[in-house]
Amino acid sequence: MSVTVVGSVAFDSLETPFGKRERVLGGAATHFSLAASFFTDVSVVGVVGEDFGEDELAVFAARGINVDDLERVSGARSFHWSGRYEDDMTVAHTLDTQLNVFADFDPQLSGRAAAASTLFLANIQPDLQRRVRRQCRDATLVGLDSMNFWIESARDSLVETMREVDVVTLNDAELRMLTGEPNLARGARDLRDLGPRVALVKQGPYGACMFTEEGYFSIPAYPLETVIDPTGAGDSFAGGCFGYLDSLAEPDMSDNAFRAAAVYGSVLASFAVEDFGTERVQRLTDEEVAARFAEFKRMMTFDEPVRA
Amino acid sequence: MSVTVVGSVAFDSLETPFGKRERVLGGAATHFSLAASFFTDVSVVGVVGEDFGEDELAVFAARGINVDDLERVSGARSFHWSGRYEDDMTVAHTLDTQLNVFADFDPQLSGRAAAASTLFLANIQPDLQRRVRRQCRDATLVGLDSMNFWIESARDSLVETMREVDVVTLNDAELRMLTGEPNLARGARDLRDLGPRVALVKQGPYGACMFTEEGYFSIPAYPLETVIDPTGAGDSFAGGCFGYLDSLAEPDMSDNAFRAAAVYGSVLASFAVEDFGTERVQRLTDEEVAARFAEFKRMMTFDEPVRA
Repeated sequence: MSVTVVGSVAFDSLETPFGKRERVLGGAATHFSLAASFFTDVSVVGVVGEDFGEDELAVFAARGINVDDLERVSGARSFHWSGRYEDDMTVAHTLDTQLNVFADFDPQLSGRAAAASTLFLANIQPDLQRRVRRQCRDATLVGLDSMNFWIESARDSLVETMREVDVVTLNDAELRMLTGEPNLARGARDLRDLGPRVALVKQGPYGACMFTEEGYFSIPAYPLETVIDPTGAGDSFAGGCFGYLDSLAEPDMSDNAFRAAAVYGSVLASFAVEDFGTERVQRLTDEEVAARFAEFKRMMTFDEPVRA
Repeated sequence: MSVTVVGSVAFDSLETPFGKRERVLGGAATHFSLAASFFTDVSVVGVVGEDFGEDELAVFAARGINVDDLERVSGARSFHWSGRYEDDMTVAHTLDTQLNVFADFDPQLSGRAAAASTLFLANIQPDLQRRVRRQCRDATLVGLDSMNFWIESARDSLVETMREVDVVTLNDAELRMLTGEPNLARGARDLRDLGPRVALVKQGPYGACMFTEEGYFSIPAYPLETVIDPTGAGDSFAGGCFGYLDSLAEPDMSDNAFRAAAVYGSVLASFAVEDFGTERVQRLTDEEVAARFAEFKRMMTFDEPVRA
């Protein structure tokens, strides 16, 4: 069993109330693959420039992530995003986006990457997502993320791609934009009517929620007193979620499997935001993951005392 | 065992995407007492004008709520709030507030109301809240709600009153305003440092969360596809919560009792918003409350499948 993720591998320049960082390792596929690597084998499909060196590759190697499908383009520079967060850390203001090598990205997957049992299409142009999806013929579980930019500029292609996946992860603002529906439950229903059997709605500091055929599941956010950098929280959430699902002894598409997966997603997201870029997840241990999963369970559990 | 609630009993004129209603029964103490009446005996302390008639009193009578402490002032009019909600139903825009009889409200509680085991100080001027709190000497559980207006205009008095209560319920924006802390967990800690042992933070469509000495508990919102009128959701939440706690066979200040209480609060809030004003809760049954409580439990439960 293994997960393949396609998406951005990038440098991020970040400004939060806790400080500034220039050109730290980032990108959706980076955050996803680091999180998923706590559960299963991961192949990352992406493109980088000459500025992407041994230090960055070592971060993937340390987590055993396969980078054979991470193309390196000579004489070009990696994708670079610059963003700033206000005090409440909920909204990222993009200061600058340099696509660089990403502008001509059109991956041809290696046999190993194409043979994955689980595929995650991180936030990239939806035509590209669909082309990758069709290369992974054996994937029994396929997830997709997107963003406001593609919803506005490539809606038809995005909807076509959504028809070919099992799970869509969007945040609540993106879900409203996609469906035109202000109500969350109706929006999730509209999204599932497009094809995906599972709608995983990310709600930033409020956690996430999941709509399936069987019902609704609410996943809290971990009540961190210090959030250093929210960048990559959603990708880490997806990484924990799909990595966990891929790790199950038997493929399990049950509601209960998705519930536990979403909690693992929230666990990984909660660590990701504790430091800049990938720094916290790089030093994360299996024991910390297990301990925080147990804490999530305690945060959600209650029994009813005896009434008069 | 019984609950006394002090707060507004009023008429509301409401405008939501689902329509307009003029002068429907409203007010914090109204919504609270109707919700609490599903669990225990309730006395409501408030003031109304001559425009408050038999139709309105019948709503309280139908739920067995004691209105001996609901003062009726001749030649005067009841408190009247007019508000409007946008499509997403999260923010109430106040169009008009007429205090009327409420401007000179200074209740002297009857023996019965003063003898309550549980007291809830709904959102009124904090000096008044404190005076009522001191009249209820036997109350073993005291809760308080407030709003941005009092946090800005009577902060010192509000903080003094908070020292004398067990539980404070605020929404997240109010918590940020009170503590000056954008982070939820830190804000809740700062609030608990003022005296209350429990911070219950209402998060509108995202549900609520609770901070106690023992830890953190997250309460989902019910995923309603149609929210008709959010007015009174927070008061219904508090009514369900404190009504349930008062109904326990033995006074129970345990973390687990508060957790179940908060879920009952969310159950009552979820019904309250299904129709204008008090209409939905007026026709609510015990069976519906029990069924939705069970649904909440299902929305929060998961087991971990076997991993490879």
